[in-house]
Amino acid sequence: MSILAIDLGGTKLAAAIFNEQGNIVEEINIPLNGREGKAVGEFILKTCAELLKEHKAEAVGISVPGIVNEKTGKVWAPNIPGWEDYPLLEEIKKLTGDIPVAIEADRTCYILGEQWKGKAAGYDHAIFIAVGTGIGAGIMVEGRVLKGANGVGGAIGWLGMQKPYDEKFRERGFLETRASGYGIARFAKENAEKRYGYTGMLSQIPEEDITSHHVLQAYEQGDPVGRDTLNQVIEYWGMVTANLISIFNPQIVLFGGGVFGPAVKFLDEIIQETKKWAQPVSIKQVEIVSSRLGLKAGLFGAGKIAFDLLEQKNNPNT
Amino acid sequence: MSILAIDLGGTKLAAAIFNEQGNIVEEINIPLNGREGKAVGEFILKTCAELLKEHKAEAVGISVPGIVNEKTGKVWAPNIPGWEDYPLLEEIKKLTGDIPVAIEADRTCYILGEQWKGKAAGYDHAIFIAVGTGIGAGIMVEGRVLKGANGVGGAIGWLGMQKPYDEKFRERGFLETRASGYGIARFAKENAEKRYGYTGMLSQIPEEDITSHHVLQAYEQGDPVGRDTLNQVIEYWGMVTANLISIFNPQIVLFGGGVFGPAVKFLDEIIQETKKWAQPVSIKQVEIVSSRLGLKAGLFGAGKIAFDLLEQKNNPNT
Repeated sequence: MSILAIDLGGTKLAAAIFNEQGNIVEEINIPLNGREGKAVGEFILKTCAELLKEHKAEAVGISVPGIVNEKTGKVWAPNIPGWEDYPLLEEIKKLTGDIPVAIEADRTCYILGEQWKGKAAGYDHAIFIAVGTGIGAGIMVEGRVLKGANGVGGAIGWLGMQKPYDEKFRERGFLETRASGYGIARFAKENAEKRYGYTGMLSQIPEEDITSHHVLQAYEQGDPVGRDTLNQVIEYWGMVTANLISIFNPQIVLFGGGVFGPAVKFLDEIIQETKKWAQPVSIKQVEIVSSRLGLKAGLFGAGKIAFDLLEQKNNPNT
Repeated sequence: MSILAIDLGGTKLAAAIFNEQGNIVEEINIPLNGREGKAVGEFILKTCAELLKEHKAEAVGISVPGIVNEKTGKVWAPNIPGWEDYPLLEEIKKLTGDIPVAIEADRTCYILGEQWKGKAAGYDHAIFIAVGTGIGAGIMVEGRVLKGANGVGGAIGWLGMQKPYDEKFRERGFLETRASGYGIARFAKENAEKRYGYTGMLSQIPEEDITSHHVLQAYEQGDPVGRDTLNQVIEYWGMVTANLISIFNPQIVLFGGGVFGPAVKFLDEIIQETKKWAQPVSIKQVEIVSSRLGLKAGLFGAGKIAFDLLEQKNNPNT
C-alpha cells in the first residue's frame, strides 16, 4: 500500500510516494520555472504521472499555498498567477480516477505533518509558524486544525502590530509586509532609503534583486541596515509568537518555512522577545522550537491527510 | 425546575434563578464593597442562600473573573485580593450539597450566554470581546469555547500591538494597559503629563480618581487629551478585532463589557479601523456588532453552563 503526497509551493513542486509505514520511498523536487495558471496544473499531473508509473497509490494528499474551497475543491493561491479559483481537484482526478483525494492549505499540512512525524507528536494544542515568502500559521486546537468558518483561519500575515495603518499593508497585510521573506527584503529597502548616505552591502545590489537572504547576510556582516531591519523583524516575530501563545495557551510552538530555516539562529532572541509580551501563565507552559521536518513539513502533512482519507474509507464508522 | 446562576465580577456580584424556559425569575445585583478573599466566598454563599430559600435549584453555574482549575475547582482571580487559588467549588458545595456545579471563566460565559440568548445564536464561529476593567475574549471555534491546553486561552489583554516593549506592560499586558477601562485611565494620565501646559477637564480631577468614564466624557467635550487617548484606543480596538478575524475567520464578533457599554457609540469607527487591517476575505464574512445581553452576558452564560450540566446528567450518553 502506498500514497501519493504533493506539496505545491509558490515557486516549486514536491511530490512523494509514502509506503505503508509512513516513510518516503521516492521523491521529486522541481522548480515551477515561472509557470502560471493551467500550466501549473499540467505540471503537477505530469510529475505525479511519473511517480505513479512505478507505484500504485491508494490515496492522494495535496498541500497548496492558499485557500481550498472544501465543497468544490477549487484553490485560491495568491502567489500563483491564474489560480484565483483553480479547479485542482477536478484536474487531479483526470489522473487519479477513483482514488480519493484530499487538498488542504499548506499551513494546515505543516502542523499535521509536524504532529505526525515531528516535534508536535503527542500534542493537541500546537502552532506551526511558517515564515517563507509569506507568513501563516497552522494552529491545532484540541487536536483539530483551526480553519475558521470558511477555511481562511490562521492568516497571521494580516496581523496588525504597529499603528498607524499604512496603505503599503493593503496587499499582503502588516506582518507579511514586515516580517516574511518578501517583507524583510522590502523593509530593508525602506530602511536603506531612510539612512542618508548609506553605502553598505545592500546598496551594492540592484534594489529589485534584494532578497531576505541578502538581508540576513548583511546582518551577519554587521551592516547597519541589515542589523536595524533584522532587529525589528525579531521583535515582530517575538510579538506574534507571544500573541498566539496568549490567545491559544498551546503546548508547543514550532518555527518553519523557507526563511525560518536560515533564521533559526535567532531562535533564542525570538524567545527572549516572546517572553516579554506573552501571558505569564501560558508562556511557562509552552515549548518554542524549530520544526523537525523543516521544508518537508508540507509534504509530510500532505501524506498525513492522504492516510487519514484512507483510514476513513476503510473504517467509515470511526 | 430551576437553576441558579452566579456572575462574580471584580467589584460586584450578580445571582439569578432561571426557570425551565431559560428566563430569569429572580435576580440579585449587589456590590462587593471592597470585600476580599474568604469574605467574597461567604458573600456569594449568603446571596445564593437567599435565592435558594424560595427556589429549588437543580444545578448551579458560576462565572468568575479569572481562571478556573478544571480538576480542583479552584479559582485564580487577579482582581479579587486573596483569590490566587480560592477553593470556590468546595465552598459553594457547602451550600448546594449534591447539586451539580459548573464554574467557568467570565469570557467563556460571555460567549456561551450570547450564543444561547443573544446575537451569536446559530453561530459556531463567534468571538465576544469584553472590555471592562480588564480585557479578554470568549472565542468559539466549531461550536466549542477555546480554552487552550490549561484553560488560560483567550487572554487578549496580553496582546502586544506596538513595539518596543516597556516595563509598564509587565503587570497586565500591553492591550490591557492601553485599551481596557484600567488602561484608558492610565493612558490618559500619561498623555496629560506629556502635553505641556494642559489645563483641560482631566487636569481638574485628582489623578488617582480618573476613570475611563472621565476620559470618555473628556472626549465628548472635545478635550485634547480625551481625544488623543480615545482615538488611539479606537485604533487598538480596531486592530485587535481585525487580528482576531484574521486568525479565526469567525461569523460574528460581539463587543461587550462595562466599558464597551458607554463606548458602543464608537462601533462605526472601530469597524472602519478593523476593515483596514483584517484579512480581506475574512472581513467580508463577518458581522461586527454590540452584545445583545450587555452586562448580563456573564449571568446568562452561567445559566447556560448550569443547564448543560443538567442536560448531561439527564442524558449521560449524549
